[in-house]
Amino acid sequence: MSGSLDPIFRPRSIAVIGASRDQNTIGRAVVENLVKFGFTGIVYPVNPKAEVIFSIKAYPSVEDIPGDVDLAIIAVPARFVPEVMEACGRKGVKGAIIITAGFREMGADGMGRESALRDIVDRYGIRVIGPNCMGVLNTDPAIRMNATFAYTSVPEGNVALISQSGAFGLIIFEHTESMGLGMSKFISLGNRMDVGTNELLEMLERDERTNLILLYLESFGDPRQFPAIARRISRKKPIIAVKSGRTSAGAKAASSHTGAMAASDIAVEALFEQAGILRARTIPDLFDYAQALAYQPLPKGDRVAIITNGGGPAIIATDAVIGAGLKMAAFSDTTLAALRSFLPPEASTANPVDMIASAGPEEYRKAVAAALGDGGVDAVIVIFVPPIAADSVAVAKAISGASAGIEKPVLGVFMGSERVAHAVEELERNRIPPYKFPESAANSLAAMHRYAQWMRRPIGEPTAFPVDRDAVRRIIRGRSGYLGMEEVRDLLEAYGLRIPEFSIVRTKDEACAEAERLGYPVVLKALVRGITHKTDIGGIKLDLRTEYEVKGGFYDILESLREAGLDREKDLIGVMVQRMVDGGKETIIGVVQDPLFGPLVMFGMGGIYVEVLKDVAFRIPPLTDRDAMELVESIRGYPILKGIRGDPPHDIPAAIDALQRVSQMVIENPEIVEMDLNPFLILPEGEGVTALDARIRVEPCDEGTPSRGQRP
Amino acid sequence: MSGSLDPIFRPRSIAVIGASRDQNTIGRAVVENLVKFGFTGIVYPVNPKAEVIFSIKAYPSVEDIPGDVDLAIIAVPARFVPEVMEACGRKGVKGAIIITAGFREMGADGMGRESALRDIVDRYGIRVIGPNCMGVLNTDPAIRMNATFAYTSVPEGNVALISQSGAFGLIIFEHTESMGLGMSKFISLGNRMDVGTNELLEMLERDERTNLILLYLESFGDPRQFPAIARRISRKKPIIAVKSGRTSAGAKAASSHTGAMAASDIAVEALFEQAGILRARTIPDLFDYAQALAYQPLPKGDRVAIITNGGGPAIIATDAVIGAGLKMAAFSDTTLAALRSFLPPEASTANPVDMIASAGPEEYRKAVAAALGDGGVDAVIVIFVPPIAADSVAVAKAISGASAGIEKPVLGVFMGSERVAHAVEELERNRIPPYKFPESAANSLAAMHRYAQWMRRPIGEPTAFPVDRDAVRRIIRGRSGYLGMEEVRDLLEAYGLRIPEFSIVRTKDEACAEAERLGYPVVLKALVRGITHKTDIGGIKLDLRTEYEVKGGFYDILESLREAGLDREKDLIGVMVQRMVDGGKETIIGVVQDPLFGPLVMFGMGGIYVEVLKDVAFRIPPLTDRDAMELVESIRGYPILKGIRGDPPHDIPAAIDALQRVSQMVIENPEIVEMDLNPFLILPEGEGVTALDARIRVEPCDEGTPSRGQRP
Repeated sequence: MSGSLDPIFRPRSIAVIGASRDQNTIGRAVVENLVKFGFTGIVYPVNPKAEVIFSIKAYPSVEDIPGDVDLAIIAVPARFVPEVMEACGRKGVKGAIIITAGFREMGADGMGRESALRDIVDRYGIRVIGPNCMGVLNTDPAIRMNATFAYTSVPEGNVALISQSGAFGLIIFEHTESMGLGMSKFISLGNRMDVGTNELLEMLERDERTNLILLYLESFGDPRQFPAIARRISRKKPIIAVKSGRTSAGAKAASSHTGAMAASDIAVEALFEQAGILRARTIPDLFDYAQALAYQPLPKGDRVAIITNGGGPAIIATDAVIGAGLKMAAFSDTTLAALRSFLPPEASTANPVDMIASAGPEEYRKAVAAALGDGGVDAVIVIFVPPIAADSVAVAKAISGASAGIEKPVLGVFMGSERVAHAVEELERNRIPPYKFPESAANSLAAMHRYAQWMRRPIGEPTAFPVDRDAVRRIIRGRSGYLGMEEVRDLLEAYGLRIPEFSIVRTKDEACAEAERLGYPVVLKALVRGITHKTDIGGIKLDLRTEYEVKGGFYDILESLREAGLDREKDLIGVMVQRMVDGGKETIIGVVQDPLFGPLVMFGMGGIYVEVLKDVAFRIPPLTDRDAMELVESIRGYPILKGIRGDPPHDIPAAIDALQRVSQMVIENPEIVEMDLNPFLILPEGEGVTALDARIRVEPCDEGTPSRGQRP
Repeated sequence: MSGSLDPIFRPRSIAVIGASRDQNTIGRAVVENLVKFGFTGIVYPVNPKAEVIFSIKAYPSVEDIPGDVDLAIIAVPARFVPEVMEACGRKGVKGAIIITAGFREMGADGMGRESALRDIVDRYGIRVIGPNCMGVLNTDPAIRMNATFAYTSVPEGNVALISQSGAFGLIIFEHTESMGLGMSKFISLGNRMDVGTNELLEMLERDERTNLILLYLESFGDPRQFPAIARRISRKKPIIAVKSGRTSAGAKAASSHTGAMAASDIAVEALFEQAGILRARTIPDLFDYAQALAYQPLPKGDRVAIITNGGGPAIIATDAVIGAGLKMAAFSDTTLAALRSFLPPEASTANPVDMIASAGPEEYRKAVAAALGDGGVDAVIVIFVPPIAADSVAVAKAISGASAGIEKPVLGVFMGSERVAHAVEELERNRIPPYKFPESAANSLAAMHRYAQWMRRPIGEPTAFPVDRDAVRRIIRGRSGYLGMEEVRDLLEAYGLRIPEFSIVRTKDEACAEAERLGYPVVLKALVRGITHKTDIGGIKLDLRTEYEVKGGFYDILESLREAGLDREKDLIGVMVQRMVDGGKETIIGVVQDPLFGPLVMFGMGGIYVEVLKDVAFRIPPLTDRDAMELVESIRGYPILKGIRGDPPHDIPAAIDALQRVSQMVIENPEIVEMDLNPFLILPEGEGVTALDARIRVEPCDEGTPSRGQRP
């Protein structure tokens, strides 16, 4: 499908098919909403049984309408949708919003109905939103189209919302209205039979009326394209997303809700991180972040000033600021002197500034101006708890006045619900987000800071390392399952990754001879068919320093196999004798397959402790140098790699290089479905890295699957 | 102070001193609030310049009042408070609420004023709330006292609130009103000059009108008594607390706000955990938890059913339930059949039950009844997103009807703000908490579940191990600073804790001789004056297996010392030769001092990785056997101790025993200000535990400090 989306978003005439005289029907609500919201084109109600709907002449069929029809909004029962769509096609309608439910989301029957509908739509080249959706809103004064069945007086503005859930669309809609958050467009996705998230994002990317995009997603329509599109758009306008179906139970529910495949949450997390999408954990967070990003400039740093008239809120806000990963600003002497000049002695001038309950509009104005004027302050949170007989609106005006035209974000916290309602409206008019609690302000500011950091960060470039592609193809071609140790070694070496020299032996004497050749100390590892975790069966002996110890180790391994019920002849492939590499830190590099996004590159600290504590992170390849660096920096054990407690710093550049080589390997060879370099040793600075053990599984590649490497 | 609190909470007559005719003054507001709220006793305004206030005869001084006065509410400027208090004393007033600010919270000057005031109060035996507070509320119909300057129509109920912040008291107050949460009592603590948190908690413990206690605290008044009191009360009624000043910056702000000493957050965390106090991270969480606990019975388990009319909310709710640590219930066949019997085929009957948008009151009633009737369901979250023309109130009634009288918690989520306002009131009338978002319901249910679990758990008993007290006193008495290694060993042994046999040597040859005597492999450790982390200077050599390796190790240690600029003669106390203990898992046991709570016992996983990842937990001694067990179970690395990957289970009972011995040691010897058993090795099951290294610092004990061991 590639027709323009204009018939849907910028129609000159709309047929509402399924409009009815009954006030409680969806079709009738759509007609009323279109008219009341002030649609600038013509509305044609269509209903075979009515002559007039909402004082507008109705037509029995779309084909009876005398003029051209750009857009059809369809709210007839599911069984009538195909014939209605045929009529639309014959009429030359080029856009449709199908509100009717009862398609793919209903299982096999519905799936068939949707696929039949798709044929009709394709035949006539009609672009479709839905089915099973809530409609579309466009506040552009040239259009003024509320093509939804939820009436709302939502003000015009610069926030666009794409929602996969109709119910949530409705909720979010109502809240943006009550928050005074102006909207540019709203699109309820429904089943995404035709128009999907990616295409809509690209439309919003070009839309000059939109400068902030909100997403509510339960699944991804075209996950392989989404990362690159989202990353590009995030550089231009912030995207805030709620992705539900986070937990596996939630994902199961999501999949039964839309029939969509569930993406693993780690992949989503990696994707959002790389694409600069701000993830809101909850719907209230989505609103909070949206108000901050829609209203205020981005902070240049993380140093926050807090100004308040109450001690309790000052403390809570300070906790929240630190808890959100921001810092409390240290005021300059000038700022401190300025604050002291007008605040009473009982006030606290150090940050957080507690001006005490006597502070009025004048104190707020001066304090906000002083904090904003301090070069050590990147953002200000202003808290007001109205004492008796306070003029809250005057305080709101003072704050707005002091912050007008200053390129630093100011966030308000006005506590006391109804008593500050007018003040909250005053703040909103002046585009200062008015939160109810300090935590919301701090978390929203932290989200702004994360986005600002991401905007400042270079995206980086994937490095293309020279590779002996022929050697690689010889190893992989036609194979299925785990590769042998020698093949693994050769494959890694083709991509410039090394593993310490080893031999595979069958007897004690061979082991001793090889140990002698490689040099002590050595490691022995049992290679057993079907066993991946060698420690489970006592199949690893480390740090063997003499021939005597090698013999003992070999004997112990055989003994362990026997105890595990394994047969030396049948199950044992051989025993690996490997030079022991000492020092460095054990990490893990892995490649796993996500059912939607394809391969993910994993990095984490190794060892049994960290395996339990799960200190790992993921990225979607191809990895740029920046992606690889952030992957390494993002794990909690990163300080260990940098070197603590007299430990030397480790070779982090070599690890970043290795991660990019792994990324290149999986991008160039989609046959690699699983890889595990574990332990992956990062040696002291300048000494490089080495995989101590490795496992690679390949499967013949489905030619139909586009490899991500082919993407522009 | 030990006089009854009745004059404050159950007065028959109140003098409001500082009442004025000006509507905007605090004194006048208090008079008006007392009268409007329907105080059942007599109100006497006191003002030397007015004859009548709010239509009530005013008196020039409290001493001019003809009848008895039980309670004085003081709102005169700070400099007049002492003389007013003297007059109250002469009049025989036995209770006072001092609203006036300008005392300890203002630094040195105010501190002096407060201490002078305290002398007067002590002389007359007057019990005091404040100064610098917002007042007291008691909704008991026999009293009906709103002795605050914030008017509110707060309904009578069973929730009590103690707040250290006036501003937050006000906010919380207004929200409980708008939430329809009935209150029994509200106390604004202010500076806690006399009546403190502990005494108020004990009053609420006895108060039959209170069955849920909310706390907003910035600091602790009497932290040494608080743990035992809170733990006792939590067994009778839930306590939900917001403790602000969590982060160190927040604590600094808190300390400048109240002049109170800051408690470290880890101590607060440990205290709440042991005492069964539910910690709310934010004020909104406090409200959410309060509604759930005030309205609904506790769940018997963690299996949750979700019933909704929208797919999006179902997914978000499922994520939230799992994210909060609860489980999704699996319905019985009976329940599934019951649901199928009345739901349309498009509905999803598996949990979460998505009844789709057509569901009305009847469907809600039947579905809630079916879920509640399922033995595999412990709690139900019911979500409603009103479609057009829905009768939300009827749905609320249906839910209330289906859940009435059932001893399982039902939590409501009614989305769509104004459109469900009446339905929300209906739910509140029926004591079903009506949340706006699924996350709030899930988190509140999780809080209920945590409390229910804590209620089911035995508290346990501290074990008293036999100890050679004389030997212990001989080691500790009169000492200051770190004990020598032999003293540490003897002290640990006196409490039944062991450390592997060692000798301290000065030369290579002595080292070899001792290694021979102890048996290989051995460990060498440099004992260096003033150096606590031996690894920092390369002062530890592990796993030395031969005389040759011991000599090399000894040489390496001397070399490392030289490189660190240390002198062998001056700085090296000696080299420890110790039998190497192999196997087991490295953990840490520690004792640290909290400035407020005194000693805390720490336990965590050892090793450099975990040191960075900070997998440690704390408890306040004395530790019962349950406390010690929970301490061990609470760390993230606990599965490692239980044994994973073919690793045997480790001797957890021995570790629990050791933690109790450490607890007893610090309780019996308050001189021990720091202890570090690190690494503390937990060997395989049945083989016990051993500290591989230990450090103990003692300081002479201040006789005035009550040891916690002396508490009942």
